Amino acid sequence: MQTEPLKDTVTRRKLIDVLMNKAMYADLVLKNGKIINVLTREIVAGDIAVKGEFILKVGNAADLIGQETKVVDLQGKFVSPGFIDSHMHFESSMLTVSEFARLSIPSGTTTLVADPHEIGNALGPAGIKAMTEEAKCVPNNVYFVVPCLTPDSPGLETAGYDITSKDMEEILNYYNVIGIGELQGFSNAKHVYKNSPEIIDDLVVSTGYAKSIGKIVDGNAPELFGSELAAHIICGGGVVSCHETTKKEECIEKLRQGVYVFMREGSTQRNMSECIKAVTEEGMDSRRCILVTDDMVAEDLEKYGHMNDVVRRTITQGVDPVEAIQMVTINPAAYFKFEHLGVLAPGKQADIVILDNLQNMNVQQVYIKGKQVAENKKTIVHIPEYEYPITVKMSVKREKINLQDLAVKTRKTGKVAARVIGVIPDQNLTEALQANLFVDNGIVMADTEQDIIHMACLERYGRNKNIGRAFVKGFGLKKGAFAESIAHDTHNIIAVGANLEDMALAVNRVIEMNGGISVVNNKKVLAEMRLPIAGLMTDELSGEEVTQKLMELHECIAQLGGTIHAPLMHLSFLALTTSPVWKITDYGLIDVDNYTVLPPLVD
Amino acid sequence: MQTEPLKDTVTRRKLIDVLMNKAMYADLVLKNGKIINVLTREIVAGDIAVKGEFILKVGNAADLIGQETKVVDLQGKFVSPGFIDSHMHFESSMLTVSEFARLSIPSGTTTLVADPHEIGNALGPAGIKAMTEEAKCVPNNVYFVVPCLTPDSPGLETAGYDITSKDMEEILNYYNVIGIGELQGFSNAKHVYKNSPEIIDDLVVSTGYAKSIGKIVDGNAPELFGSELAAHIICGGGVVSCHETTKKEECIEKLRQGVYVFMREGSTQRNMSECIKAVTEEGMDSRRCILVTDDMVAEDLEKYGHMNDVVRRTITQGVDPVEAIQMVTINPAAYFKFEHLGVLAPGKQADIVILDNLQNMNVQQVYIKGKQVAENKKTIVHIPEYEYPITVKMSVKREKINLQDLAVKTRKTGKVAARVIGVIPDQNLTEALQANLFVDNGIVMADTEQDIIHMACLERYGRNKNIGRAFVKGFGLKKGAFAESIAHDTHNIIAVGANLEDMALAVNRVIEMNGGISVVNNKKVLAEMRLPIAGLMTDELSGEEVTQKLMELHECIAQLGGTIHAPLMHLSFLALTTSPVWKITDYGLIDVDNYTVLPPLVD
Repeated sequence: MQTEPLKDTVTRRKLIDVLMNKAMYADLVLKNGKIINVLTREIVAGDIAVKGEFILKVGNAADLIGQETKVVDLQGKFVSPGFIDSHMHFESSMLTVSEFARLSIPSGTTTLVADPHEIGNALGPAGIKAMTEEAKCVPNNVYFVVPCLTPDSPGLETAGYDITSKDMEEILNYYNVIGIGELQGFSNAKHVYKNSPEIIDDLVVSTGYAKSIGKIVDGNAPELFGSELAAHIICGGGVVSCHETTKKEECIEKLRQGVYVFMREGSTQRNMSECIKAVTEEGMDSRRCILVTDDMVAEDLEKYGHMNDVVRRTITQGVDPVEAIQMVTINPAAYFKFEHLGVLAPGKQADIVILDNLQNMNVQQVYIKGKQVAENKKTIVHIPEYEYPITVKMSVKREKINLQDLAVKTRKTGKVAARVIGVIPDQNLTEALQANLFVDNGIVMADTEQDIIHMACLERYGRNKNIGRAFVKGFGLKKGAFAESIAHDTHNIIAVGANLEDMALAVNRVIEMNGGISVVNNKKVLAEMRLPIAGLMTDELSGEEVTQKLMELHECIAQLGGTIHAPLMHLSFLALTTSPVWKITDYGLIDVDNYTVLPPLVD
Repeated sequence: MQTEPLKDTVTRRKLIDVLMNKAMYADLVLKNGKIINVLTREIVAGDIAVKGEFILKVGNAADLIGQETKVVDLQGKFVSPGFIDSHMHFESSMLTVSEFARLSIPSGTTTLVADPHEIGNALGPAGIKAMTEEAKCVPNNVYFVVPCLTPDSPGLETAGYDITSKDMEEILNYYNVIGIGELQGFSNAKHVYKNSPEIIDDLVVSTGYAKSIGKIVDGNAPELFGSELAAHIICGGGVVSCHETTKKEECIEKLRQGVYVFMREGSTQRNMSECIKAVTEEGMDSRRCILVTDDMVAEDLEKYGHMNDVVRRTITQGVDPVEAIQMVTINPAAYFKFEHLGVLAPGKQADIVILDNLQNMNVQQVYIKGKQVAENKKTIVHIPEYEYPITVKMSVKREKINLQDLAVKTRKTGKVAARVIGVIPDQNLTEALQANLFVDNGIVMADTEQDIIHMACLERYGRNKNIGRAFVKGFGLKKGAFAESIAHDTHNIIAVGANLEDMALAVNRVIEMNGGISVVNNKKVLAEMRLPIAGLMTDELSGEEVTQKLMELHECIAQLGGTIHAPLMHLSFLALTTSPVWKITDYGLIDVDNYTVLPPLVD
């Protein structure tokens, strides 16, 4: 409802006057374009006339050109509605809202629907509110869908704040909040129903309230089919999306059941080429297909672009270019009830992208609310800086630790059987492994020969000082350690180490920095990066500098023997309790399917 | 917002339990169907499981069949979501809401979006409210879009009540009112802008309020293109429909500009076969194409069916059957934001139609809210009678008149030049004609040789006792007269006569009956029909009886020499001031394009 600026009667009356009165004119006319009409799935030659923030007319706008009208001759270039990213997390980029805006606008992204899931887990309503406040300062349209449950798995992990239905009245009414974000709590439907039915009770209250005030609810239904999928849809209030669909058959099932499938194509997880087969191979109606990024890193934004790159890749899969553009314009606008966005038509907000062709989706100019904001891959408007409140910047509340705190201990000697989390490259899923490890002075040791190292997750919000301990296989680390305050979704401090001393130092640096990433070897810090905002994002570095810094951190990890690519991201997802099979939280080793905590040692 | 029953958390929790708990079951399973999936534009074999009013699951529902579950084996029949008529007037059928429900439900129509434009003109909020109250008693889903301006042309005609923006807060909040209906006031954009800009001021206030509380606004943009169409769209708040689109090019223009084109296919005006060419010939995306009836007579409902017949005819034009069904299900559901209707999917209201094939669209069974309501063309549930308030039934407030009251008088003798409205068969448009007529005793006479007869429109709401007088050509009447209290859109009493004496009697019978239709010859009433509800509808006759009575009335008019088919309908539209060029109201002869009243005689 907050998404309809045309409610304003004065503005509407003025637009009508300009259209009907032969002595009044448009502010801006983009003429001689090839207009991508996502309403009719056509490309039609024509002009676009703009008055203030709104489109007056699409077609022949010659009658609206007066002496004061700025006229831009597009010389046959393509004109598209601005692109919408329907599901993204600023936190994944480690960038602020304004820095992400600066980097993504030149690619034609005019609207972001952000899920502040990470800052919500870390800081609760205060964190979410700060982020929505920052969004007031940017030229693009930033909307939010907020978490209704933190942590994802109550009783198995500690978040900085426990969001439940009690918080909905407050956070659903923050600036530009249009609904509830990914419904993590019931994504693992069978196990939650069996083990934590009270979560469902709370979710239906939250989603019911959201729907009652006209908000949307995003679902999150990885690998759900049949009755479980139906239950998830109903839990979400009857109309949900899913951005965790990875297989063609899963996509077909969800589209048939009325789910808006958010085909994910971000920096890490790329599911579009599989999902899109429902359209390209089965010829299904694509009106509920939507392209999203979920997680993007700064480097990719700079190198490849943003939604324009996702569209380009979708076209490569054999989708008609206009149909692909529908998936980032009119389709999400319909889902989110954005009546003012997503199409080029009278009365819509003048968010316009000029492209030189539809093969490379090369964006030349971007207009938001009738004003040009980008030219040739550069944002050309000033974006003011927002100063986050001190509470958001002081998110790490625990004393330093020592190596004893991180150790898995036993009274046994010789070798013991340990449970080991097996990392699977490029997946959130893990394997449940077992290995025999040496005991030294009561401490179970890593074994780099077997590629098994120490792992810990430390509560960092001053709530209980929990430390979860386990072993992990798959990083390749031969020496040293690294730690970070990014650990999905609760974002406690997570660390791995070939030895406990370096690991303790890495953790302590993260504590000292009040959030960040640190790589340590031989009692020395090799590289580090501060993440002052909730321990997740930086307001000190630009996107380019973040990219540089991450390269440096990754190089240091490689020097320690690290073999897996994107080790920091893999580490951060080892705390995610919503995907099977074994994970680590501040409670310890988590058996996801059985919704329980396991000891790190067998017996 | 009032359209989302799944907000109810108790219901949702119960549905989730049935789906997840292996010891709980569906109430009803329709098994072995060919499910018309309007989400994906497919037909997929499967079952539908229902609990209470809602669909639990679509697909294989074997796991939801328990001992108490009623199982219906569809033996491969087609299963469709219930059909939606997105724009209709009960008044056109002369039937009450409940009688229309009884006749239309067996054809698969489960949802009606009614525009109480006629009763609103006649009785204002009180009339609209009574109709919405009746809608509470019927098993189908009846929603309303209400007029925001009566009469259509203030200053040129008298309605029973002047609805303006001052009334919106009240009537937009009546039961099941989802928005503002056809935006008559700005359909004739150029002339209204020039002559009555204050109408636009008021419309933007009304539509702005409607949008601000989440309601929709139907447009009405006959023959509008370019800037005028854009102004109409913006006047309606940015997202409008149009049910007055008659030409392919007009349909293309409107779809490109984001208008939801309501392709009309009712008893009288049939525009679908022309409009649909935008889809069949141009291949345009049909997501904003919607099929509506606008005006249906009882006879056609019985003979041909309702939305199933409209779909059948659309398929005949070469449209894929599932795509045609989308135009009466998911497409209107998207437009009206009916999240609970229009698709067969988990959590949706169980409005289900069983068809034996998609060529004849023969409906065998209909379910509404999970309950069977029709079988083999008969409604099988009892629909209680609603008693309209006495104020609605006493709508004619004027004394009887005499022939002098109806006469066009002059001081001239011999012949005078008179303005004559030329009826065009099957159109709302008229011609502006002129003829020389004899004067007898100061009264200008009809001339049946030239097919020119008397015509009058008498204000009937006790507001000013206006009588408009003029001449008309095209009915073929040689003797007698007829009158009716149906005269679009103000519904004063309209009458034509070969002589004034019979005409006065016909008018007086309508006054005596408190609304209705009367045919008179030689000072005797040949036939008549009471229309007690607002002078527009009957609660005394069934649909079948109305059909019989209308046949009798039409036969009597034919006996008087009447040549035009449907003379009562043609007469009633001669008062419609929103379509060119000459019309009659209680103010007199109306020059529509110049928004002015003309004298019946030249000079």
